[in-house]
Amino acid sequence: MGNVTLPKIIEGLESGDRRLLAKAISIVENQTKGREELLEYSYTHMKKTKLILGITGAGGSGKSTLIDKMINVFRAEGQAVGVIAVDPSSPYTGGAVLGDRVRMASHNTDAGVFIRSLGSRGAFGGISQGTKDVLYLYKSFGFDAILVESLGVGQAETEITNFVDITAVLLVPGYGDAIQMAKAGIQEIADIFIINKSDRPEAELLYQQLLATFDSLPPDKQPLVVKTVASENIGITELFGAIKTAEKRQAPNKDLKLKARVECEIASRVRSHFDSKLSVQVTRMMIPVLKGELTPFQAADQISSKISIKE
Amino acid sequence: MGNVTLPKIIEGLESGDRRLLAKAISIVENQTKGREELLEYSYTHMKKTKLILGITGAGGSGKSTLIDKMINVFRAEGQAVGVIAVDPSSPYTGGAVLGDRVRMASHNTDAGVFIRSLGSRGAFGGISQGTKDVLYLYKSFGFDAILVESLGVGQAETEITNFVDITAVLLVPGYGDAIQMAKAGIQEIADIFIINKSDRPEAELLYQQLLATFDSLPPDKQPLVVKTVASENIGITELFGAIKTAEKRQAPNKDLKLKARVECEIASRVRSHFDSKLSVQVTRMMIPVLKGELTPFQAADQISSKISIKE
Repeated sequence: MGNVTLPKIIEGLESGDRRLLAKAISIVENQTKGREELLEYSYTHMKKTKLILGITGAGGSGKSTLIDKMINVFRAEGQAVGVIAVDPSSPYTGGAVLGDRVRMASHNTDAGVFIRSLGSRGAFGGISQGTKDVLYLYKSFGFDAILVESLGVGQAETEITNFVDITAVLLVPGYGDAIQMAKAGIQEIADIFIINKSDRPEAELLYQQLLATFDSLPPDKQPLVVKTVASENIGITELFGAIKTAEKRQAPNKDLKLKARVECEIASRVRSHFDSKLSVQVTRMMIPVLKGELTPFQAADQISSKISIKE
Repeated sequence: MGNVTLPKIIEGLESGDRRLLAKAISIVENQTKGREELLEYSYTHMKKTKLILGITGAGGSGKSTLIDKMINVFRAEGQAVGVIAVDPSSPYTGGAVLGDRVRMASHNTDAGVFIRSLGSRGAFGGISQGTKDVLYLYKSFGFDAILVESLGVGQAETEITNFVDITAVLLVPGYGDAIQMAKAGIQEIADIFIINKSDRPEAELLYQQLLATFDSLPPDKQPLVVKTVASENIGITELFGAIKTAEKRQAPNKDLKLKARVECEIASRVRSHFDSKLSVQVTRMMIPVLKGELTPFQAADQISSKISIKE
C-alpha cells in the first residue's frame, strides 16, 4: 500500500474500499499519524448498522466457530458483516494468537465479510481503546452487522455492553462454575446466554440451572437462553430469534447506552493523557519511597494534591 | 464488635487478634474512617511472610479445593495461613458469591487459618485496591503463608504477579483452548502451571503440549508444570516442591518486583483521586457532545488541556 494519503483513505472508507479500511485500521490501532482525523471522520460519518453484537466467553467456549456460522446466515441474507476479534495478547509482548483468523478462513475470499483480529494491549478495564476506535471505522464503513468477539470473564467485560447493542455470553456445560459465573456479574451483562457444545451430557443441567437462577426476575428481565452446537450448525436459527427478542427489549435503553458510551469514551481518553503525565511524577517519588522516607500512600497524596483541572 | 477504637484495632493486629483483623479488613475494604491509618500502620509494620502465593484460574478450575488441600499441608507444619479469595462480584451490585467460603468451611474452627472473601469491585486492570490493601493487613498480622485466589483469565491478572512472590495458574484439561491461553500472555505471568483434574483423559495431551510450548525457552525460564487432582489430594506434595523451585528462581527478581509494586501502588491511588475530579468534567461535556457540537475526542482534548500537575 505504501504511502496512501489520508484523504485517499477517507475516500476509501466512503466508497467501501476494503484495502483502505485495512489501512485505516492499522493507523488507528498503531496510533500513527492520521488517527485523530480518521476518528473524527468516522464519528461524524457513522452509517446505519442494523446490529452490533458482542460475543464474549472464555477461551475454548467456541466463539469463533459460532461467529463463522452466524456469518453464513448474514451472507445468505446479503448482509455485509464486519468482525472484530480481540485476541488474548500478552501484555508484555503484544503478541497475538492467530487461531481466530485461521478458523474463519472460509470467509476470506468473500467481499461481504471483513474480519480483523486486534491485540488487547492496553485494555485496562474493558475492551481496548483500539477495539473502540476500530468500531467507529466499521460504523462509518457501513457494515449491516458488526460482531465483536472478546475473551470474556468477569468485570473487564462490562464496558463492552455500552459499545454493542446486544451482548451474548457463551457458556460451556460441564465446565465447573459456569452457573456461578452466570450468577455473578455476567447476569447483568448478558442479554443472551448461549449454551454452546450443548450436546454434552451436562447441557440440560446447566440449562435448567440457568432458568432457575433467573426465575425470580420478571419475565422481560430474564436473560434469554439458547442452546447451540456451533460446530454442527445447531441452534443458530434460534440464536438469531433470541437476538431479535433482545433487540426489542433493548430499544428503550438506546439513549442510556449512548450516554454511557460517550462518557466512557471521553473519560478513557483523558485518563490515557493523564497517565503519561503521572508516570513522570511516580518515577520521581520512587527514591524516597524505596528508601522508606515516605509510604506509597503518602507519595500518592503528595502527587494528588498537586493535580488541578483549570476552570 | 460495635465501636472498637482504632488504637485497639492496631493493638489487635500486633497481638494477632483475629476478630480485630476482621474488623480492620472491613474498614479497609469499605473505605470507612481509619483506613488510611490502618494502611500506614500495616505498611510500616510488615512482618516476615515466608510465602505469598497467587493462585489464578477460570471459574471451575478448582482453585478453592486446591487451596483447601494446601492449607492442610501448611497446618501440618504448624504454619499460620491467611487466604484472600477474590470473588467474581458484580460490577453493578457489588454482590459476591459465597462458594469459596462454604468450600473451605472445614478450616473455619482452626485458629491458624484465616480466610476472607473480598469483592472484586473497582478492580480495573488487575486485582482490586481492596485486595492490595488487605494484603498489607495480612502482612502486618504475621501469617507464615498468604494465598491470594483470583479469577484469572488474561490481562487483568498480570498486576497480581507484582503483589505475590509466586504465581500459579490452574488449567483444566479438555477445556478447549487451555494451551492457547497458556501461550498467550499467561506464560509470562505463571511461575507454575497446575494441570488440575489431571485424571481426565485429556490431561496427558495438555501436559505434553505445555512442555512443547515452552521447549524453546532456556530450562530455567520454562514454567514449572505440576499435575494435580485437588479433590483427591493428588499432586499436592509435587506442587509444594514446584513452589520451592520457583522461589529459588524468583529470588534475584525481588527488588524489581518491589519496585513495580510500589509504582503500581502510588499510581493507582493517584488515579482514583483523579477519577473523582474527572467525572465532574466529563458530565459537563455531555451536553455539547450529545448535541453533536463536539465529538467525544474534542471533548477529551479540551479536558486534557486543562489538567496540570504543579511542580
